Amino acid sequence: MSIDEFNLVYNAISFAIAAFGASTVFFLLQRTQVSPAYKTALTLSGLVCLITTYHYLRIFESFNSAYVLKDGLVIQTGMQFNNAYRYVDWLLTVPLLLLEFVLVLRLPHAETYKKGLVLTLAAAFMVILGYPGETLTTGFAKVIWWVLAMIPFSYILYEMIKGVGASIKTQPLVVQPLFKKTRLLIILSWSFYPLVYILPLFGLSAFVSIQVGFTFVDIVAKSVFGILIYIIAQRKSEIGA
Amino acid sequence: MSIDEFNLVYNAISFAIAAFGASTVFFLLQRTQVSPAYKTALTLSGLVCLITTYHYLRIFESFNSAYVLKDGLVIQTGMQFNNAYRYVDWLLTVPLLLLEFVLVLRLPHAETYKKGLVLTLAAAFMVILGYPGETLTTGFAKVIWWVLAMIPFSYILYEMIKGVGASIKTQPLVVQPLFKKTRLLIILSWSFYPLVYILPLFGLSAFVSIQVGFTFVDIVAKSVFGILIYIIAQRKSEIGA
Repeated sequence: MSIDEFNLVYNAISFAIAAFGASTVFFLLQRTQVSPAYKTALTLSGLVCLITTYHYLRIFESFNSAYVLKDGLVIQTGMQFNNAYRYVDWLLTVPLLLLEFVLVLRLPHAETYKKGLVLTLAAAFMVILGYPGETLTTGFAKVIWWVLAMIPFSYILYEMIKGVGASIKTQPLVVQPLFKKTRLLIILSWSFYPLVYILPLFGLSAFVSIQVGFTFVDIVAKSVFGILIYIIAQRKSEIGA
Repeated sequence: MSIDEFNLVYNAISFAIAAFGASTVFFLLQRTQVSPAYKTALTLSGLVCLITTYHYLRIFESFNSAYVLKDGLVIQTGMQFNNAYRYVDWLLTVPLLLLEFVLVLRLPHAETYKKGLVLTLAAAFMVILGYPGETLTTGFAKVIWWVLAMIPFSYILYEMIKGVGASIKTQPLVVQPLFKKTRLLIILSWSFYPLVYILPLFGLSAFVSIQVGFTFVDIVAKSVFGILIYIIAQRKSEIGA
């Protein structure tokens, strides 16, 4: 790792801590700006960012104990960088992100429960099945775990387009475009993760680009996504929907 | 660096931590003192100061690991002082400062969205284009990055005078002078940054004056600015505007 690469990863992780910390406070305070039906969605947005702030603090600590910049050189200390923090984070946050989306749809109770349950279970299975292949850099086993994790991911995509698509059509006209943008943001940003996952199979693994890439997509998939959810909740509150 | 200079930087950074920490609590608590339409602006003021408190804590930590005062001498430890914290901070806070201003104008949704989007994008580009030249102390490349960053900055100044100027004329008469003062504070304090940036080209670079200077202007551009935004929000709430 060069000095510039060290600085890039270091500053990207620190940036994430600040961005997620601020996002947490934003979502929790702005609960006052939406009607009671949407406060839970904002609570979940805040929790997602709080959990992520915690994990980025841990990732920062882990990075700084594994690599040190001294006298103009990047030194490996021999301590291990912990890759699992991201998976532990996703196991908690990815189901919550889908729940946020389901909650701002404000469907009948039974439907919220059913959609929430299948989507959060699929999200949890996706992350759990992805982890065993994370540490493998090559080979057949990595492909197997990738394919296994892609099954719940494909189901989530199918459900977001088909089932959730039908629910979006029942929303007030003024917020339908916002719902479609938010759904597109989920589909595009989430698709980035399985791509990065299989990069090592093509010899393209790079610690630096993976760390910076995941950090950037995390901010889009959680903070920017949360802001769209907030705007939807706020608009729907204004029109009493 | 002399002992006096070391102490000056050390105490200025510590002063900033206290000032921004206190500002954060002030803005977040005072959300109760303004009507719902202005609570988001105060949330953003609080977030700007929270993000800045975090970065000054990091700058303090970085300064103390790079320089140590021992046996009456300032010793360089070999650890690097991280200059990037300020840029990472500005990347998050500068767009939010402009959003605060747009939000207290309380324009129609579409106009708030449009003005907010172009100003925050211009602010982000300004900071991103400024960073590559920050580490260069001399030469043509630094001038190029400075000129590139000045393009979005000039656009922001133009928009603050022209577009925002027109919006200020639609504000209640009682708050128009306050809006003009706040806008003047943005224009004057923000102009300080590109000046400090090109000082090294004239052989005037001084680590101490840059650190102390940036710290002082940060407090004006964020805390003092936030207080003006708060007063505007409070006056407008009082008259139901």
